Amino acid sequence: MIPAKGYAAQDAQTDLAPWAFERRELGPHDVQFDIQYCGVCHSDLHQIRDEWGGAIFPMVPGHEIVGTVVAVGAHVKKFKVGDLAGTGCLVDSCRTCSNCNDGLEQYCEGQKVYTYNSLGKDGIPAQGGYSNTIVVHEDFVLRISNQVDLAATAPLLCAGITTYSPLRHWKVGKGHQLAVLGLGGLGHMAVKFGVAFGAEVTVLSTSPAKEADARKLGAHHFVVTSDPAQMEAARGRFDFVLDTVSAPHDLNQYMGLLRRDGVHICVGLPPTPFQISAFTLLGGRKSLVGSMIGGLPETQEMLDFCAANDIVSDIELIDIKDIHTAFDRMIAGDVRYRFVIDIATL
Amino acid sequence: MIPAKGYAAQDAQTDLAPWAFERRELGPHDVQFDIQYCGVCHSDLHQIRDEWGGAIFPMVPGHEIVGTVVAVGAHVKKFKVGDLAGTGCLVDSCRTCSNCNDGLEQYCEGQKVYTYNSLGKDGIPAQGGYSNTIVVHEDFVLRISNQVDLAATAPLLCAGITTYSPLRHWKVGKGHQLAVLGLGGLGHMAVKFGVAFGAEVTVLSTSPAKEADARKLGAHHFVVTSDPAQMEAARGRFDFVLDTVSAPHDLNQYMGLLRRDGVHICVGLPPTPFQISAFTLLGGRKSLVGSMIGGLPETQEMLDFCAANDIVSDIELIDIKDIHTAFDRMIAGDVRYRFVIDIATL
Repeated sequence: MIPAKGYAAQDAQTDLAPWAFERRELGPHDVQFDIQYCGVCHSDLHQIRDEWGGAIFPMVPGHEIVGTVVAVGAHVKKFKVGDLAGTGCLVDSCRTCSNCNDGLEQYCEGQKVYTYNSLGKDGIPAQGGYSNTIVVHEDFVLRISNQVDLAATAPLLCAGITTYSPLRHWKVGKGHQLAVLGLGGLGHMAVKFGVAFGAEVTVLSTSPAKEADARKLGAHHFVVTSDPAQMEAARGRFDFVLDTVSAPHDLNQYMGLLRRDGVHICVGLPPTPFQISAFTLLGGRKSLVGSMIGGLPETQEMLDFCAANDIVSDIELIDIKDIHTAFDRMIAGDVRYRFVIDIATL
Repeated sequence: MIPAKGYAAQDAQTDLAPWAFERRELGPHDVQFDIQYCGVCHSDLHQIRDEWGGAIFPMVPGHEIVGTVVAVGAHVKKFKVGDLAGTGCLVDSCRTCSNCNDGLEQYCEGQKVYTYNSLGKDGIPAQGGYSNTIVVHEDFVLRISNQVDLAATAPLLCAGITTYSPLRHWKVGKGHQLAVLGLGGLGHMAVKFGVAFGAEVTVLSTSPAKEADARKLGAHHFVVTSDPAQMEAARGRFDFVLDTVSAPHDLNQYMGLLRRDGVHICVGLPPTPFQISAFTLLGGRKSLVGSMIGGLPETQEMLDFCAANDIVSDIELIDIKDIHTAFDRMIAGDVRYRFVIDIATL
């Protein structure tokens, strides 16, 4: 086994703390890479606090992972030592169901192995990226250009693909009015992608203070959602609302901003059910849809697109000892727009 | 003015009763047709009881109307005296918004005039088809083949187009697994259209007693929704669920029957909001959508399709004096599958 160190939660009540553990020995298709940066996602916090249920402890969170390959298994073809590499939310899947066959491993109907808080096929809990090194089957390791800002690329592995994938799937682009609901880690990436794809982008936010940032990110318009006059003026305007909010919120008012045949795309996971009126859906043939991260081929496509178009996340680099301050600020919405842990500080 | 007689509700509490009223004199583009048959829709009852709010009394319900033209305005080109004619849920719209321009008058953003319980452009309440004659602008009158069973064609004007339109819009057909939720007036038409379009059709119903009927209508499979084993076996099977239920129901269990990228189409209007988990939407990139009746061009297309393919509604013809018994039986689900009033009995 390969010795590793990380920051782990020992249970749902206590803070993350240093923890020594082991990574598996490399199989013939495994890649080991030393982690340089790991993004901080809201779902890290949900899971170490067992807010979605079924948490497996000890738990090393983190699924926006980038670093440099230090060893490869005998049959690995895609990577060699010294290459940059990344891993997102998934480290394995059944590889046989129709969704896996379609390259949509995130919807795998068999055994899907998340990067942490999930049992590997060997029965051993997977551990995430708040750690110094990781071993992953090459099929779940992404190639990363050595031309990019590596720390700012880490969040693409979750926040990036989560917003890129639905915009591509629903073919959002030139001629479309796109509203991005919520300007956080996901939302700021949605703005960048929406603009890059040619859509006219409006940020919907409760916080007027974010308007300057929204425009700096490329947004063309800004609507303060708590202002009834601004909301009324935006009625029926959008082809798409990309909803990045993970807190409970009233969909009916946002779906009222859609035109006929408009699509409201949820990528956040509020813990309580949405309440949606049938009149909201029927009056204008509207769609409420969900999208979850992205498959491996599309994640690679997204990384390549970002490298080619100079797209990275706006980040604040932190020492791992400051992770709990970062969590507190993340909950308060006080991050522009993603914390990334400098794993050298571990 | 043109004298007319019908059955009207004088308020939300009392039964329908005979009522004498007037239809407008024909304008240059108006068509007058004497009504022979009018279908009985659940929304007739919702509205005479003011269950959706804002009811206008006295109210003559009925929006599945067929009969024979008896007079035409000076500029009417589409109809001559003696032609068969029909009118559905709409008798006018703004005719200028983008939805009207697209032939989707049901989503008109201006003044939309429903066939009853709605103010006409002249400010006079429109009155529906539980009556002997009606005057409608020719653009909102449908042509009906004289080869069809006229009484059984009446329900196509609402139950027919309400199910035809979403199946066409979402291109349901060969190679698709279609589930029809609820086997009533809408559901039995959805089965007929689904089969006609080439889909493999499954009826989802609480009532095992309806299986024989479902198969007679052309359904290939039948799932009793109250049987957990049958529901479990159907998980992930369907490309589309066409949900015709107007009573409150739990969408999450039905959306669990969809495959990845499956679409749950609501055409009923439950009075209380749906509760839908974000996990239901995200896990499989599923869509929850709504569709409302259909525009005039598509309603004509549907009638022509039905005439060409021998599709009518399965009806029970009633005397208008039995309308309250029919309402009671409709609420109890004791109708196979649409009551139609023989207006000769008025």
